[in-house]
Amino acid sequence: MKTKNLGFDTINLGHGSGGIMTRDLLDKIIFKTFDNPLLNQKHDGSIVKFDGEIAISTDSFVISPIFFKGGNIGELAVNGTVNDVAMCGAIPKYLSLAFIIEEGLEIDDFIKIVNSVKAAADMSGVQIITGDTKVVERGKGDKIFINTTGFGEVHPKAIITTDNIKNGDKIIVNGFIAQHGMAIMSQREGLEFESTIESDTTNVNFLVKNLLDQFGDKIHLFRDPTRGGLASVLSEIASDTNKGITIYEKDIPLEKQVAAACEILGLDPLYVANEGVFLSIVDSAIAEEVLALMKNDEKGINAICIGEVTNEHPNKVVMHSVIGGKRIVSPLIGEQLPRIC
Amino acid sequence: MKTKNLGFDTINLGHGSGGIMTRDLLDKIIFKTFDNPLLNQKHDGSIVKFDGEIAISTDSFVISPIFFKGGNIGELAVNGTVNDVAMCGAIPKYLSLAFIIEEGLEIDDFIKIVNSVKAAADMSGVQIITGDTKVVERGKGDKIFINTTGFGEVHPKAIITTDNIKNGDKIIVNGFIAQHGMAIMSQREGLEFESTIESDTTNVNFLVKNLLDQFGDKIHLFRDPTRGGLASVLSEIASDTNKGITIYEKDIPLEKQVAAACEILGLDPLYVANEGVFLSIVDSAIAEEVLALMKNDEKGINAICIGEVTNEHPNKVVMHSVIGGKRIVSPLIGEQLPRIC
Repeated sequence: MKTKNLGFDTINLGHGSGGIMTRDLLDKIIFKTFDNPLLNQKHDGSIVKFDGEIAISTDSFVISPIFFKGGNIGELAVNGTVNDVAMCGAIPKYLSLAFIIEEGLEIDDFIKIVNSVKAAADMSGVQIITGDTKVVERGKGDKIFINTTGFGEVHPKAIITTDNIKNGDKIIVNGFIAQHGMAIMSQREGLEFESTIESDTTNVNFLVKNLLDQFGDKIHLFRDPTRGGLASVLSEIASDTNKGITIYEKDIPLEKQVAAACEILGLDPLYVANEGVFLSIVDSAIAEEVLALMKNDEKGINAICIGEVTNEHPNKVVMHSVIGGKRIVSPLIGEQLPRIC
Repeated sequence: MKTKNLGFDTINLGHGSGGIMTRDLLDKIIFKTFDNPLLNQKHDGSIVKFDGEIAISTDSFVISPIFFKGGNIGELAVNGTVNDVAMCGAIPKYLSLAFIIEEGLEIDDFIKIVNSVKAAADMSGVQIITGDTKVVERGKGDKIFINTTGFGEVHPKAIITTDNIKNGDKIIVNGFIAQHGMAIMSQREGLEFESTIESDTTNVNFLVKNLLDQFGDKIHLFRDPTRGGLASVLSEIASDTNKGITIYEKDIPLEKQVAAACEILGLDPLYVANEGVFLSIVDSAIAEEVLALMKNDEKGINAICIGEVTNEHPNKVVMHSVIGGKRIVSPLIGEQLPRIC
């Protein structure tokens, strides 16, 4: 798509008016890109059929910068919500898509983002079925914010709830942690350093479906450690279940250059945001099989068991360090890195 | 709820971190206010049961100012999406709720908004089932933006589609137009004048349900003329159906002070945004009964037929003016009033 054919180079306030300019933007970019019968109803909403249990999840994405190593805000907005739906034990099917655009956004950038939304949606097997476009004045937003709300059918074998978590359950992570946060940080103003760290943004819904197909209710919980990182999610689980969690530093998968970047910046990778990482808390009897299945999937090739649920130290996450000590892992207090997703 | 008990006076970046401060904000305000078993799952998403056809609609609200005569951004965000779901011929049941907050927002203002969301949700009979909170730095947003995505069961008797519209269908509006836009405009910097005009933000879902209960598929279309006003919605319908629409200026319900305000500011009320107004395009045989039912409901007490669908002038909206002339009503070009919803 060439900008020159559209008749405008940047988004302006008229594109959020609800009048001809809005329709023009939608027709030339949105409807053209996402062409499907549900969206093409062009009504105030979209009508879909569902039977049974539906998982619904919403997220607004305000990441800065909007283009980063390994992705951009468009695919992040799809993958983030697709994964949240999957974490409920569901198979994502549909997404809504709502933009808040700052006046002056380059149309070329908007098109790149929209194309990434489309590619990520196709990759995850979800359709964009309804949307909204608002434009705010220069200085009242920051380029573009995206909200996606996702809907999926709960997997017939899934019983995903903290209530099922029991002592001895194994905690499995599908791959290297802290990559998304460190990729963003490496690009932020004043924090640039030599690095090829890329965001791990990706969809994990098919791997999750395979796990549920295979292991059903032996999988007790899925959770993705995005904002707040591994430490915050594990602390929440310990607190919600009133059980203890033990993890082993030596087993936490961390790429060398991510570890080095964390050290340079004085950050603890346990608190750094992830996007394509998820935790599975599973019955210990199936842990080895879960690992084997994951390692067979490109989204889980580096899967590893990092710890277990325990009767000891209820409500607390305790990490056994590489050098032999133990420390309590508390949830993130305050803000480590704003606008990471 | 008293601010002093919360331990913070304003929203800061930590409240968007995903860590302890986010949880604290959610526990003290969000979960406390919206307390319901679906939201209380506190998972990445929420699981609900549905059977059959679901209408889904999303909207981001970026209105400025966030508090205005007749309402605030909180109730607007609920009513707007509830009405969009209703316009699909559905009965709204659930909403997601996602905030993008600018650092520094007063907690008192946030609580007022959250309480208005709750009151409006109760009024419409919908539950808030999942949400998200992001915080952006000062100057990168504007106080608060809210996305709501709504889900409703399609009414068993509803067949709402432009395909059903036929020549002779009557166009009925439920009440006075242009109130929301003129209320906002009267408050904007540099445009203040003596006025008691209030936004018409309200939910119309129960009136819509009653109409569908009573008249089923004799109601061909619902549409709410928000951004872009009556003119833009009618033009869209004419264009989508390839039919003509005739309206009569003398019948368009306009309050005197709204008309006066439009005149002072040189605005055409047909292009001014509405929030509690909706159009029903109905079989002419039931038009009188529809009007009677509406007039019995406080949300439709000023209902009136403003025109009809015609074989003449396909794709065009033509208005018969009070003084006897005719003019083509085109859709809104550009932006009349940014950030009206």
